[in-house]
Amino acid sequence: MSNSYGKLFKITTFGESHGLSVGVVVDGCPAGLEITAEEIQQELDRRRPGQSNITTQRKEEDEIIILSGLYDNKTTGTPIAMMVNNKNQAGKDYSHLEHAFRPSHADYTYTTKYGLRDHRGGGRSSARETLARVAAGAIASKYLKQQGIQIASYVSAVGNIALKEDYRALDLSLIDSNKIRCPEPETAEAMIKLVEETRKNRDTIGGVITCVIKGVPVGLGEPAFDKLHAELGKAMLSINAVKGFEYGSGFTGTTMYGSQHNDEFYTDEDGKIRTRTNHSGGIQGGISNGEDIYFRVAFKPVATILQPQTSINDAGETITLEGKGRHDPCVLPRAVPIVDAMAALVIVDFLLRQKAIR
Amino acid sequence: MSNSYGKLFKITTFGESHGLSVGVVVDGCPAGLEITAEEIQQELDRRRPGQSNITTQRKEEDEIIILSGLYDNKTTGTPIAMMVNNKNQAGKDYSHLEHAFRPSHADYTYTTKYGLRDHRGGGRSSARETLARVAAGAIASKYLKQQGIQIASYVSAVGNIALKEDYRALDLSLIDSNKIRCPEPETAEAMIKLVEETRKNRDTIGGVITCVIKGVPVGLGEPAFDKLHAELGKAMLSINAVKGFEYGSGFTGTTMYGSQHNDEFYTDEDGKIRTRTNHSGGIQGGISNGEDIYFRVAFKPVATILQPQTSINDAGETITLEGKGRHDPCVLPRAVPIVDAMAALVIVDFLLRQKAIR
Amino acid sequence: MSNSYGKLFKITTFGESHGLSVGVVVDGCPAGLEITAEEIQQELDRRRPGQSNITTQRKEEDEIIILSGLYDNKTTGTPIAMMVNNKNQAGKDYSHLEHAFRPSHADYTYTTKYGLRDHRGGGRSSARETLARVAAGAIASKYLKQQGIQIASYVSAVGNIALKEDYRALDLSLIDSNKIRCPEPETAEAMIKLVEETRKNRDTIGGVITCVIKGVPVGLGEPAFDKLHAELGKAMLSINAVKGFEYGSGFTGTTMYGSQHNDEFYTDEDGKIRTRTNHSGGIQGGISNGEDIYFRVAFKPVATILQPQTSINDAGETITLEGKGRHDPCVLPRAVPIVDAMAALVIVDFLLRQKAIR
Amino acid sequence: MSNSYGKLFKITTFGESHGLSVGVVVDGCPAGLEITAEEIQQELDRRRPGQSNITTQRKEEDEIIILSGLYDNKTTGTPIAMMVNNKNQAGKDYSHLEHAFRPSHADYTYTTKYGLRDHRGGGRSSARETLARVAAGAIASKYLKQQGIQIASYVSAVGNIALKEDYRALDLSLIDSNKIRCPEPETAEAMIKLVEETRKNRDTIGGVITCVIKGVPVGLGEPAFDKLHAELGKAMLSINAVKGFEYGSGFTGTTMYGSQHNDEFYTDEDGKIRTRTNHSGGIQGGISNGEDIYFRVAFKPVATILQPQTSINDAGETITLEGKGRHDPCVLPRAVPIVDAMAALVIVDFLLRQKAIR
Repeated sequence: MSNSYGKLFKITTFGESHGLSVGVVVDGCPAGLEITAEEIQQELDRRRPGQSNITTQRKEEDEIIILSGLYDNKTTGTPIAMMVNNKNQAGKDYSHLEHAFRPSHADYTYTTKYGLRDHRGGGRSSARETLARVAAGAIASKYLKQQGIQIASYVSAVGNIALKEDYRALDLSLIDSNKIRCPEPETAEAMIKLVEETRKNRDTIGGVITCVIKGVPVGLGEPAFDKLHAELGKAMLSINAVKGFEYGSGFTGTTMYGSQHNDEFYTDEDGKIRTRTNHSGGIQGGISNGEDIYFRVAFKPVATILQPQTSINDAGETITLEGKGRHDPCVLPRAVPIVDAMAALVIVDFLLRQKAIR
Repeated sequence: MSNSYGKLFKITTFGESHGLSVGVVVDGCPAGLEITAEEIQQELDRRRPGQSNITTQRKEEDEIIILSGLYDNKTTGTPIAMMVNNKNQAGKDYSHLEHAFRPSHADYTYTTKYGLRDHRGGGRSSARETLARVAAGAIASKYLKQQGIQIASYVSAVGNIALKEDYRALDLSLIDSNKIRCPEPETAEAMIKLVEETRKNRDTIGGVITCVIKGVPVGLGEPAFDKLHAELGKAMLSINAVKGFEYGSGFTGTTMYGSQHNDEFYTDEDGKIRTRTNHSGGIQGGISNGEDIYFRVAFKPVATILQPQTSINDAGETITLEGKGRHDPCVLPRAVPIVDAMAALVIVDFLLRQKAIR
Repeated sequence: MSNSYGKLFKITTFGESHGLSVGVVVDGCPAGLEITAEEIQQELDRRRPGQSNITTQRKEEDEIIILSGLYDNKTTGTPIAMMVNNKNQAGKDYSHLEHAFRPSHADYTYTTKYGLRDHRGGGRSSARETLARVAAGAIASKYLKQQGIQIASYVSAVGNIALKEDYRALDLSLIDSNKIRCPEPETAEAMIKLVEETRKNRDTIGGVITCVIKGVPVGLGEPAFDKLHAELGKAMLSINAVKGFEYGSGFTGTTMYGSQHNDEFYTDEDGKIRTRTNHSGGIQGGISNGEDIYFRVAFKPVATILQPQTSINDAGETITLEGKGRHDPCVLPRAVPIVDAMAALVIVDFLLRQKAIR
Repeated sequence: MSNSYGKLFKITTFGESHGLSVGVVVDGCPAGLEITAEEIQQELDRRRPGQSNITTQRKEEDEIIILSGLYDNKTTGTPIAMMVNNKNQAGKDYSHLEHAFRPSHADYTYTTKYGLRDHRGGGRSSARETLARVAAGAIASKYLKQQGIQIASYVSAVGNIALKEDYRALDLSLIDSNKIRCPEPETAEAMIKLVEETRKNRDTIGGVITCVIKGVPVGLGEPAFDKLHAELGKAMLSINAVKGFEYGSGFTGTTMYGSQHNDEFYTDEDGKIRTRTNHSGGIQGGISNGEDIYFRVAFKPVATILQPQTSINDAGETITLEGKGRHDPCVLPRAVPIVDAMAALVIVDFLLRQKAIR
């Protein structure tokens, strides 16, 4: 069941980069939710290749087709199947990669795991799989918005260029105002410049995405294994190229004393229970406490670089590889809607779980 | 199902700090594995309170009782139930905490989630739950050892005192040679000194545990959602007090260029496929590649401090709390066997999954 | 995960007849349910050996011990672990069965499946496992009663002696008024006589249990695979000795025409939607329709008979076996609370699932 | 997760009768299995409407489209998505059913469960969903055949016309030699005549399908809840119109004495362990024992009849309904490949589970 995620709001993705289609089945979405293909398309467009000069220049329309589960633009409670057809799957010649193991790609591990692989364009390990997540996440997000829950992700670091301020000092409405998706215009510019230089050097660069979730009611998440942040962590780490996850004070919190780190409770003027600081990142004992949830996700540099690299083929012989074509010099701006989507899927699942027991 | 973990080698834990017992049911362990209560007890003893002057001084024997699933010291394929009785559960008076919400504890979130809570000693949110994981992990570890897989965790940072060298420069056989469980003697001494000072200041301090897994065959882990590192991440983040997880190059990898980060493949003299560097942390495309798997886990400082703190009660009124009794100034040394256990549970589960399909 | 059942109200059972204990962990029970050990014990007593001269005369107290999950006789939302200690597990000599494959028992299949088995008293395949289900079911039943849902099972046939009337003509309050648990006194007497004769003949006999569930709201059950009756069927077929399941018109319905079988809808005087007949057994399209749910469960005769039987041992050699000791000549009366329990577990799970989506 | 089935070989179906497509995602099929679209189509054709004058005369091509998971006609280990487009979904007028609750259909229960429904052609409750199962089952069957496991289902009763002989006396190669799929030609003829008469009377009729599985190795199935026959029972009961399931001696076995019912073990001339009789139906303690597995599945008469029926609408008002168009007078012949498919899915799942632990 490696291709399913979620317990009550469950998605199952399918498709490889060069099959007919990539898609998803959403099972467990409550009935009666109004949603249109356009709303889903809008999120897909944020992930689409070719959206700017700092992403891959491949032209893929990625048009969503809804196969089932909607009637009169309302969910019916039955599985919602959606897919995007792969347009140019027949076109390109991938024969030079049939026997090659590209460095830091999944070629070698897939081949060994399964005994064979579809080598065209990365096959199932291609990041095209994530469009299925974005489509499903758009439905989850719509549901959450109606419950007053808002998710916003943004690029907080590219290479060594990092935002100085944390999310509370930023205007999150500016995220989509620039092509790197960083809400601080000056930093965004510096990031974009770094990506452009990296591209010119035929190289790639990593970075960090920060995600903020506001409006989550107290009580989501489960004790023991399904802690809210444990599921968020798994969801983020399941995105291609992710190497790390931290929430609240994260790794920095490990250097603090308890007397510094503890978040003091108080009752605000509306009688609402709050904490004065939020090192807990909105989660205590694995359960949301009503404060903002925030976390950071580390992305490594894209493995495909337009430089010659030494590697081996499936006979174990040394070969030289060189990336061709149009690739992302930096995956971060296109990964923002994926982080949004996975966060929405985690939260909606816990929301339904909580409804079941209260 | 929040209290179960694993798909094929599945554990279900139960028990709160002040009920009769804390325990676990292990379902799916292959039959015929030889294991004794002593081997399990040995791992529990590494987690036990009172083992040194830098852990809590509570005396808890934590003696394992095996209720089912073993016959003649061999697993039979049926569920293995084990438990530890809570010795002093009746003794202590917790009435002062009945209505209090301790800062950065789960009191408030549990109460809101469930509408009530067992307030004695943290109830289900107590770290006592982790002894159930350690017992189950001991069985998983034994199975893995027979397959040539070795797991070693150690404390790599306490507060700002961090190991300079990575695991390849360390002698991992020294982990248990000191009470902080850091394999570098001089650093260990500095860490211990810091913890002792912290204790004297009636405070607590966080830190980092590094885990190394050697001997994992190529092919474990699943594409899409159940990537090997995603499950490791979830497993680690499900441990009390964990705030972050990174594997391989982790957050540092985000500042690298692809040309630096990519791990070059080569065939070694034994004809084995290897990589020259290991920024991938032994995992590519979510699947083990045969190199060492390594990752870092961030622990926040323990929330219970022996200092007066302002908080509120369940009526929303301001109160002053002060931790009493014997608590850990630093959870790291006792958390090492928990990280070992969770890592073993993740690996054994993927090992069985892989057997199913090949 | 073969020892777990349920999705949201999940139970995991453990224990073999001659280990220390048999028990269960209930995960997902809503918090705040009032329940006492006595209420659970009461259901266990209905299943207990030695309760009358037509069940086995083994004396087993089967006293429930609650290990976790309750506080002040209220569920806390955390896992409820319960167990019964096996009293005489050391006493009896089972060495004559160590290598024997008893006819129509699980000795041969377990040994082949796992490569070894705990042969004492049937090990895990012993019907003692069902006491764990009854304990869990008692909690589920209590929850359901508070929602107005009542479950009643009774013996409707022993051998060829079958009730003439269906459940609507019976007084279900009489189920426990006799030792065979058949609510029609005259038929009960004839059944008891047949069981007594069978016992004298050192033989065993099968029968049928009918279960009726009243008060189920419209809407429980899921389309496709988790149809309400499909889960009920699985739950019943998972009980030892069960050979068949039918609901509503069942096998008899296969001989009917659609024009006879269809249940006509009408609106009753209270404005409630009802059907005039109930061949559907309260379930349409896998979803409850508000009418009574009823089904029948077929039990084979107990395999252990006090007569010499030819069989083989694990070396494939012919042997003669003869059941010894105290065994049930007819499992039906003791199986009634097990059917009750499994029905309760199925219904409560769907009830929670439905709460999640509406 | 109501639309998924299986644990290791997992299918997720989607689609309603009048959406764009009906399809399935198969997750967990081992890599390297050779299979063509033609082989899958062949099974779909056995389920297709319009295949003879005793099935519905609707013309549906039901052409399979494979979206992912195959490369060079071999499975790659990644999810296999397949679908069939609904051809005439736009054409027909279903407005007369928009507010009607058809007797013994799922209209009322769906509407109440979800608060709305797609009323066109039964929506998700349409038997069209089963074509997704047949497509997935074809893959499972191919895998099983390579392991020497053969599944054969046939119509053993239509109304009161039932086969006198059990499967051992029949030539199962004749199943597809007639349009009712009964391997005994004379009985087949009588059945066909009954169906034709029923059709003329604008009525429908039920019946029984028997399934035989040969070549299953000893050891499949799990103790406790996932007994082999419990999963088979659930799988069969999840098929539209099924009302009952019995395996081995079934309901008849309830009237037998233990001394009659027990299956004597012996060692055959090849040294293989066998039983002289097979009341156990090839399953003991929930685990396959190497004998033929056989079971019977009860189908009610189709609810749609071409006669006027009294019912109500969603306002609770009395209405008169009359089935229109082309419907099956008897679902049995088209249900045979569905029973085959579900049986294959159950067996393959347990086969993979067993590989995991041994």
